[in-house]
Amino acid sequence: MRSYRAELLLNIPARRAFLNITPQVREAVRKSGVQEGLCLVNAMHITASVFINDDEHGLHSDFEKWLETLAPEKPHSQYRHNGYEDNADAHLKRQIMGREVVVAITGGELDFGPWEQIFYGEFDGMRPKRVLVKIIGE
Amino acid sequence: MRSYRAELLLNIPARRAFLNITPQVREAVRKSGVQEGLCLVNAMHITASVFINDDEHGLHSDFEKWLETLAPEKPHSQYRHNGYEDNADAHLKRQIMGREVVVAITGGELDFGPWEQIFYGEFDGMRPKRVLVKIIGE
Amino acid sequence: MRSYRAELLLNIPARRAFLNITPQVREAVRKSGVQEGLCLVNAMHITASVFINDDEHGLHSDFEKWLETLAPEKPHSQYRHNGYEDNADAHLKRQIMGREVVVAITGGELDFGPWEQIFYGEFDGMRPKRVLVKIIGE
Repeated sequence: MRSYRAELLLNIPARRAFLNITPQVREAVRKSGVQEGLCLVNAMHITASVFINDDEHGLHSDFEKWLETLAPEKPHSQYRHNGYEDNADAHLKRQIMGREVVVAITGGELDFGPWEQIFYGEFDGMRPKRVLVKIIGE
Repeated sequence: MRSYRAELLLNIPARRAFLNITPQVREAVRKSGVQEGLCLVNAMHITASVFINDDEHGLHSDFEKWLETLAPEKPHSQYRHNGYEDNADAHLKRQIMGREVVVAITGGELDFGPWEQIFYGEFDGMRPKRVLVKIIGE
Repeated sequence: MRSYRAELLLNIPARRAFLNITPQVREAVRKSGVQEGLCLVNAMHITASVFINDDEHGLHSDFEKWLETLAPEKPHSQYRHNGYEDNADAHLKRQIMGREVVVAITGGELDFGPWEQIFYGEFDGMRPKRVLVKIIGE
């Protein structure tokens, strides 16, 4: 069995944004040399998400609006977590969008459907954050 | 290490439905010959889900009603993703229900609790879609 | 390839609660002897979740209030699943919070960011429940 680990470093210049990280994950798969296996991609921070959906700006704008409806940032005082912090909404949004994805590797490539792309979802940005890529297989 | 890959082909004759795909996943596990390992089951399309819950029709009806409350299909014009498309709500619903499940394989079987069943959740159907089953282990 | 399986037994004395199970998962990783691999942790019951977030009491109180807003328990009669049962809301809450997490194992340890902790989320407690830990790697 072969294993490979990489960290992606991100520093999003906004509180919230979605970033396509598929190219970096592809690069990790290539470097791993794994032909058949599984690739775990997860946010290492609890106010961010990794998820798979469409690379379409209108949809990302819909996600932003929708998440604000389901788990609004303000007023900050509505959450007991907020006090020293103001990011309770980010912890909730991350539950909707998810922490991680597991992607099959087949023939040395991410085994994707036609529109699948991997995104980093930042909900409390303007600081350095990390994404973990862990690959096992052979 | 052993690996196995299968695709399930689905063509749901409705915009939205839930389908129990546990028998097909069991069959893939049997064919893989894997005794101890992990089984990834994911929608290959970004307007569909794979999730584990109860095989009970009342609950599925509750899911349908609940998802329409959280991410209503109509009016289509409320979403920026809609224009050429009308399926923005399907992309949102899929985030609530999830893209994938990872299930343990123990003794050559899906290692399930008493009521766990794997479902395909279609949110933009009436067209061919695929589910990926990827198994690694030995 | 090495594999390891453990079950955690839980009996939460309330309908809903969040419990940090990171120490038990760490112990399973240690016992497995796996140095590089993947660790799956999933609820074996469909009215409970396993998720990763912050070990902060204010946030857990926010989760409880938020989930009651998105998928309220009462009135029980609003759900078709309820009749013999009264736990439809628990099946919905579990979809928001998720069934499982997959965590990388690196150097024999859970490969975590600074604040990641694994929680069991009970939404229909006062009865015995199980969590599965399955580890593969080498």
